[in-house]
Amino acid sequence: MSHGKQFTFYTNVNGPNGWKIFIALEELGLTYESKYLDFSKNEHVSPEHLALNPNGRIPTIIDHANNDFVVWESNAILVYLVDKYDTSHKISVEKYEDKIVQLQWLFFQASGQGPYFGQSGWFQRYHHEKLPSAIVRYQKEILRVFGVLNSVLSKQEWLVGGKCTIADLSFIPWNRAALAWHLDDVESFNFEKDFPGLSRWHNALLSRDSARKAFAEKDALTAAGETH
Amino acid sequence: MSHGKQFTFYTNVNGPNGWKIFIALEELGLTYESKYLDFSKNEHVSPEHLALNPNGRIPTIIDHANNDFVVWESNAILVYLVDKYDTSHKISVEKYEDKIVQLQWLFFQASGQGPYFGQSGWFQRYHHEKLPSAIVRYQKEILRVFGVLNSVLSKQEWLVGGKCTIADLSFIPWNRAALAWHLDDVESFNFEKDFPGLSRWHNALLSRDSARKAFAEKDALTAAGETH
Repeated sequence: MSHGKQFTFYTNVNGPNGWKIFIALEELGLTYESKYLDFSKNEHVSPEHLALNPNGRIPTIIDHANNDFVVWESNAILVYLVDKYDTSHKISVEKYEDKIVQLQWLFFQASGQGPYFGQSGWFQRYHHEKLPSAIVRYQKEILRVFGVLNSVLSKQEWLVGGKCTIADLSFIPWNRAALAWHLDDVESFNFEKDFPGLSRWHNALLSRDSARKAFAEKDALTAAGETH
Repeated sequence: MSHGKQFTFYTNVNGPNGWKIFIALEELGLTYESKYLDFSKNEHVSPEHLALNPNGRIPTIIDHANNDFVVWESNAILVYLVDKYDTSHKISVEKYEDKIVQLQWLFFQASGQGPYFGQSGWFQRYHHEKLPSAIVRYQKEILRVFGVLNSVLSKQEWLVGGKCTIADLSFIPWNRAALAWHLDDVESFNFEKDFPGLSRWHNALLSRDSARKAFAEKDALTAAGETH
């Protein structure tokens, strides 16, 4: 590691999952060198990156302070970062059962939010054929997931342990993407009115310094044309 | 808990994710009372089940030996079961870094295999409109995931730690479903020939007593008409 930072962090400007890791690294004050992979040049499936991450997706990290230990899958990275480096439990819980609930919400994010919100984006922007019934399917699923989160966040401030943790932070990028453009043509959708607990929580998460810094960097890179 | 078993286990005959938990409970010799929820009667979104699992999906467990602790999300349940009850590490790793790699593969299963294989099934069997380009999209993703697994399993016997763990076991039900009927019309698909490392591993997993028992029960329930 010639860059002298603790982590090498492979990510992408457009992909939501990398921004989770940016946010967690910032929350924990860890040092890292970002490598934005250009998907249009297939840098994510280069031999160099596949040797680290056989799935050929982002994010991937190398921890130079732990024998160059490599982790991929964004939510596994989040768990690793807090296990090793959040000893004061700034963004993680401490009690064993709370850790399992934190993990449960991370799995809900990884399996229930990310992939379905991602399919919504795919069929709205990237699929070669317009398939209205597929688009509607995934918009409905976004609203279902919003409803699940709202049902919980109407009764409590955070998902687990009475504090903001990686479980909460993991939902930011995909919720932000969905609200930016996935639901534009859904009639009568009103985020604050329909999902008051969820919108309160989402806005609280977005106002954190870590999230502000993440999306300022994303917007700057996008403005500079680095959107691959 | 009037049934006298350690766990109450909410699951479903057709849903692949519940069978992961059946397999792990059998591997660990834990006692459980299965409650097969009938989705056609909306039992998964009943007030009783939503009070345990606000996502209204299966599986959900209650551990009566730990103050009726509730966990949902299948892979969070797997981690909980081995953390608490696999003290001899029969199906889990011991070293910290191996645990993170085990978790990484669990997240790949939860985010990369399950949802995409599930969409393949949806568009082939359940969507109200035939959308060939959506079906092709997800069949291609199944083959991509098969390729990722094969690239690793051609070089090593198991995903992590040199032994069969919950990371390996978690892939069984969706791979089995995909091989049973998702790829029928994919020309020249030959599992053993195209994916030798993956097929060797998948067959080894299926031959375990726990998996044999799981799919014998699934087949018996299906034959009895309990397929909701």
